[in-house]
Amino acid sequence: MSSTNKPVEIDKDGSFKRQTNRFTASFGEELPVEPGKYRLLWSPACPWAHRAVIVRKILGLDTSISLGTASPLRPQIDRVDWEFSLDENSKDPELGIQYVSEVYLNADNNYSGRPTVPMMVDIDEKKAVNNDYFNLTTDFETAWAPFHKEGAPALYPKELREDIDYWSEVIFHDINNGVYKCGFAQSQEAYEHAYDQLFARLDKLEQHLSKNRFLLGDYITEADVRFYTTLARFDVAYYNGFNTNRNLIREFPSLWGYARDLYQTEGFGDTTDFHAIKQHYHLSITINPDLAEKKILPKGPDLSVWESPHHRKKLSQTRDKFRF
Amino acid sequence: MSSTNKPVEIDKDGSFKRQTNRFTASFGEELPVEPGKYRLLWSPACPWAHRAVIVRKILGLDTSISLGTASPLRPQIDRVDWEFSLDENSKDPELGIQYVSEVYLNADNNYSGRPTVPMMVDIDEKKAVNNDYFNLTTDFETAWAPFHKEGAPALYPKELREDIDYWSEVIFHDINNGVYKCGFAQSQEAYEHAYDQLFARLDKLEQHLSKNRFLLGDYITEADVRFYTTLARFDVAYYNGFNTNRNLIREFPSLWGYARDLYQTEGFGDTTDFHAIKQHYHLSITINPDLAEKKILPKGPDLSVWESPHHRKKLSQTRDKFRF
Repeated sequence: MSSTNKPVEIDKDGSFKRQTNRFTASFGEELPVEPGKYRLLWSPACPWAHRAVIVRKILGLDTSISLGTASPLRPQIDRVDWEFSLDENSKDPELGIQYVSEVYLNADNNYSGRPTVPMMVDIDEKKAVNNDYFNLTTDFETAWAPFHKEGAPALYPKELREDIDYWSEVIFHDINNGVYKCGFAQSQEAYEHAYDQLFARLDKLEQHLSKNRFLLGDYITEADVRFYTTLARFDVAYYNGFNTNRNLIREFPSLWGYARDLYQTEGFGDTTDFHAIKQHYHLSITINPDLAEKKILPKGPDLSVWESPHHRKKLSQTRDKFRF
Repeated sequence: MSSTNKPVEIDKDGSFKRQTNRFTASFGEELPVEPGKYRLLWSPACPWAHRAVIVRKILGLDTSISLGTASPLRPQIDRVDWEFSLDENSKDPELGIQYVSEVYLNADNNYSGRPTVPMMVDIDEKKAVNNDYFNLTTDFETAWAPFHKEGAPALYPKELREDIDYWSEVIFHDINNGVYKCGFAQSQEAYEHAYDQLFARLDKLEQHLSKNRFLLGDYITEADVRFYTTLARFDVAYYNGFNTNRNLIREFPSLWGYARDLYQTEGFGDTTDFHAIKQHYHLSITINPDLAEKKILPKGPDLSVWESPHHRKKLSQTRDKFRF
């Protein structure tokens, strides 16, 4: 799922109200779990899709679920769709579609919402089957468990689910969607309310992570994946583009160490495309149409700092970041 | 002088070419030096005008030259003028004008450039006499010396003029105007060239100021005033609005200590209006018309940090920041 060019998802008070997902059938219940049956569509720009790609990689589901990558750049400034313009002839090589919207319309001819990623597509039918970014990763962790790679870590262990679910809610409202509530607010009050909520939560998380290596303690879980995708976009995109500009993430000592700890872990940094993120938010998104028109891409910030030592191991009692 | 809404000062290669000043008669030569004869027009948003206001204050010329303050907000989004909308009935109380452009037209009926501040106005004639921001402050320091307050410091001492003039040139091209060259560039190449030049210079200045309390050593001079006005606007406006986003000034240890050292000196911090600066660059300037239209003012960054200790005295051999 990602952002719209001219957002219509605006409440009376000017605050951003994210659309609900249309395709929420869950795997293992309504949808069969079958390797080779689905293709996951994403764009490296989109934090909601990035979450699914990280979990797919960590769990080794990349051999069971193929991946189609849409460009971070919208087809046109006013067209809120995702295009396979990075592929030959601008078509996804497996599905043969040019736009993500095509699988939405194949599944529901009356679909009128934003076509979003992540989207799980039934390959044979070329139809949208699931764009439920909130639950897709936990489906990967549970229903798809038979197809995890050997020795895949436990990102959503039973005994921690209640805590992980708590963090997922908090992180969704105050952080993941919190930055969008800042960036898409249409009134000063709605913006300031979202800004205050965001930074109050970041301050609390800074405290929490000064004593805990990861959100749930010694091991990376689903909750960390959810937090990471916003952290990775914060300094390169949201700080400027969404006016979340009290502080940069690299100015919070614990959050910054934590973000790098994750970035330097397989599945995180190797799926993070800062250039694509910058292109999307600075050249394709509503907040700065003037820049987009001029096609000026900000050169900063300095990204080499993501590789610097994070010194977080001392917070951990264990040798491994993952629980098996 | 300040920035235009729809800049036409653009070269073939997309780079920003600042207009030259129309009124450059110098004080003591073409223009008589007379207390009470002139009014200085400024807006707290504008770095070029801020320079003149700092020097006027430090030298005690505030009793000889009165001050008219235009709003940081442009009259309309497409009207590049300065308006006295903060004054009663939106008129400057001394000159009775609503717009700065009026004194330009009173002096030159064919004036077609941007009406800029600082502007020295002949009060009786209500005519523009000098908008030469590059030389106005050195005029204050030299031609206006008979009217300096008792014990006014030497901002432009004879034996240092060659060095100060060197720094003034460097700072003008790479820093003061350098940020505008980034923000107003109309091609990626022109922008990146300006960005590289700006940060290369900031890196050099960071080195220089790690060993020197001020640019010329132990004392504040004209050169520091020129550098300060850009530093004060960098994190609150240019980093976001002009894409000068490799690093914030508060991330450079020496530049940040130096900026606070100046800010905490009379004439600097007390003439710095961060709120006005933010309003101007975020609500009135070309770079982000969408934000301006929505009237969303970024809440950050945290400005309380400007008051924090700078620990720069150890770099100085002297008790006072000024040379007398």
